Amino acid sequence: MTPTESLKDLGIILPAPMAPVATYVAVTIAGSLVTVSGQLPAIDGKIAVTGKLGQDVSLEEGRHAARLCLINVLAQLNVAIPGGLDAVSRILRLGGFIAATPAFTQHAVVMNGASDLAVAVFGEAGRHARATIGVSSLPLDAAVEVEGTFWLS
Amino acid sequence: MTPTESLKDLGIILPAPMAPVATYVAVTIAGSLVTVSGQLPAIDGKIAVTGKLGQDVSLEEGRHAARLCLINVLAQLNVAIPGGLDAVSRILRLGGFIAATPAFTQHAVVMNGASDLAVAVFGEAGRHARATIGVSSLPLDAAVEVEGTFWLS
Amino acid sequence: MTPTESLKDLGIILPAPMAPVATYVAVTIAGSLVTVSGQLPAIDGKIAVTGKLGQDVSLEEGRHAARLCLINVLAQLNVAIPGGLDAVSRILRLGGFIAATPAFTQHAVVMNGASDLAVAVFGEAGRHARATIGVSSLPLDAAVEVEGTFWLS
Repeated sequence: MTPTESLKDLGIILPAPMAPVATYVAVTIAGSLVTVSGQLPAIDGKIAVTGKLGQDVSLEEGRHAARLCLINVLAQLNVAIPGGLDAVSRILRLGGFIAATPAFTQHAVVMNGASDLAVAVFGEAGRHARATIGVSSLPLDAAVEVEGTFWLS
Repeated sequence: MTPTESLKDLGIILPAPMAPVATYVAVTIAGSLVTVSGQLPAIDGKIAVTGKLGQDVSLEEGRHAARLCLINVLAQLNVAIPGGLDAVSRILRLGGFIAATPAFTQHAVVMNGASDLAVAVFGEAGRHARATIGVSSLPLDAAVEVEGTFWLS
Repeated sequence: MTPTESLKDLGIILPAPMAPVATYVAVTIAGSLVTVSGQLPAIDGKIAVTGKLGQDVSLEEGRHAARLCLINVLAQLNVAIPGGLDAVSRILRLGGFIAATPAFTQHAVVMNGASDLAVAVFGEAGRHARATIGVSSLPLDAAVEVEGTFWLS
């Protein structure tokens, strides 16, 4: 299956991507290298999961937030790349930022919400390097932010 | 206008870049891909904006700090690349690290201090992807740190 | 000396790399660009340095943790790249994440534990760009996490 077919199979309809609210852009392309700006767990322009892991956001909510972030990354990619998602030959890296208390330790579980979806949609090409860290706060009180780099075929 | 002309037009004189105080370097170049180390809001070797957003650094001071960080990124680039700033064909990504309290939410406003300058200097080529996050602390108590990746023409 | 010879000279035996515990992978390769996932200061699958700088981890322990992280980055690289470490032509960037209190300021000293080893092993090719930040928490309470990008010859 292509990524587009996998998304359909998973019942995921990519949203219209949000426009950055500043002078930056959502996606840059240079040669085969594609960089997607950090995306928040937004639905219809509203942050769906706010707060901190280890305090007022559960592990399951955090996983859901990471998945939403990746859906928004894919939505940006899909409109920015000629050929859409199916032109991606590899996810190189996902950066996962988890808003968390100092005592929180299960960042990997949260970020798996994004990583598992990446593999479900792209198969082997979706198996990415990643760095996952806990941060003191994120824009608009989002619980998670995910950025990504991709390689075009 | 070239980036060099735009800087002049903006009245910005790039400082002599600071030497890294360790075994790393400020800039690496590989093929067309240029990576610049995280830069702090330093003037003449002294951090000009210290502290935390949401506590003892105002939004306007934060924006100013982000702008200073980008000026230092450009200063490093300008001396490291054959041809200087005008050899850059695209800013691929800026990473913005905002030292902030857990309750802070306006990271994007702060980082716009860097993003707006990038576009003022490079025009369309300055429209970059970015990831902006809040961090618990930064080297030397800096309020902001900015790193960047660039593509050469 | 090659990196492999330098490691031997330094008395460092690369451990068997840890398998990621999720759907991501340790290393992606695209063209000449290699990305290694964030590595923790683990020895034999156990995090050797936990806690926070500025609180319960000393500067020297932090430096040691950063060095361990880089050893694990190199262990991943060595098995993932055809030709192993000696096929690396340049370390492009190291990302250093230091779990730290808001008051901590000496992130650079900690990260030098990784940077110094990079140069000891790779010589000039090991002189990398880097971004070092303080984070509120890291996976499994690790004190430091290091990720890297590399260029193949």
